[in-house]
Amino acid sequence: MKLIIISGGMDSVTLLHEKKDEIKMAVSFYYGQKHQKELMFATLNCEELNIPHQIIDITNIGNHLKSDLLQSGGEIPEGHYEDSIMKQTVVPFRNGIMLSIAVGIAESNECESVLIANHAGDHAIYPDCRKEFIDAIGKASVSGTYAGIKIESPYVGMSKRDIALRGKELGIDYSKTWSCYKGGDIHCGKCGTCTERIEALEGFDNTEYEK
Amino acid sequence: MKLIIISGGMDSVTLLHEKKDEIKMAVSFYYGQKHQKELMFATLNCEELNIPHQIIDITNIGNHLKSDLLQSGGEIPEGHYEDSIMKQTVVPFRNGIMLSIAVGIAESNECESVLIANHAGDHAIYPDCRKEFIDAIGKASVSGTYAGIKIESPYVGMSKRDIALRGKELGIDYSKTWSCYKGGDIHCGKCGTCTERIEALEGFDNTEYEK
Repeated sequence: MKLIIISGGMDSVTLLHEKKDEIKMAVSFYYGQKHQKELMFATLNCEELNIPHQIIDITNIGNHLKSDLLQSGGEIPEGHYEDSIMKQTVVPFRNGIMLSIAVGIAESNECESVLIANHAGDHAIYPDCRKEFIDAIGKASVSGTYAGIKIESPYVGMSKRDIALRGKELGIDYSKTWSCYKGGDIHCGKCGTCTERIEALEGFDNTEYEK
Repeated sequence: MKLIIISGGMDSVTLLHEKKDEIKMAVSFYYGQKHQKELMFATLNCEELNIPHQIIDITNIGNHLKSDLLQSGGEIPEGHYEDSIMKQTVVPFRNGIMLSIAVGIAESNECESVLIANHAGDHAIYPDCRKEFIDAIGKASVSGTYAGIKIESPYVGMSKRDIALRGKELGIDYSKTWSCYKGGDIHCGKCGTCTERIEALEGFDNTEYEK
């Protein structure tokens, strides 16, 4: 059985639904992100699927990291997700930190692997979403645990549009996911992640955006 | 400049003294270990060398891990450090978790590498101390960060005796370090780490042990 890292965004919620029969437990992280609202949607989807879910507060770590995505950082930039200005929202080695914690928890709970939903659209600005990184941390996990915990990232070669289309087939209601980095009452429709969401859900988008 | 992970034990304190001129900052982790007393010795040595030091509380993570080393676990076994019974004290993927957090902090603070003092004597029972693991997580760190943060483990091929002899040359006072997993008032002299300490310091051991 597997452990999944779930943010409450479109990608990890899709992976949760797709692999639900192989998932023993789900973990989410609160690291001081402005859009902590996403965590509520992680809980909602896990409850719906009856999958045990824990939110782990790692703000003690987030307090030592620098990023505009964090409450301690500056304004969230507007623009396209792949624009270089979005680099300000990268949290240094976030996937490394979340995956390592997840591997330790997986070994402690007799899970054989950790699922993560990084995808091809992340590659432009997130070094810790690329295949090279995932392969290396996967080797670290296999060699650094007794059980040889594996890391699985089935969406690494897929676009967000591909993921959304798969989710549509699975009947996922994406209004029960959260993308906006600003973390307001409703999606802003202008930040990098909102722009990316709008493109991915084109034709079946039931998200409420700010006018 | 470098960031060092320091526990307050013999190995990391030796590395701190040896590399002091290249070290910008030091981090220690409180993860619920019974021998949290070690952290006081990390602070003591960093203060002596005037190196900025942070203790990061990650008990929220430790609470999800299973090990007799933790306050949530069973009794610390007595015997030799390399005995199989000592496996009970292994904290799943501890070095993976600590290194990943350190890499994120290093990138946030413009350090170029992370120093860790794992050594050959650790290899028997700690999968996440072996060269294969360190090499893999080092590749993950280089590929998963903008700055290409490196992981350096200069003691990976050395025995604890070699480290102690190097520390002796450097004039390190090992009574200002902590090893005992039981974390009592003074070193118990019987647990795996005490046994290992006694062997490493033979001939110049000024540690006070229980009778």
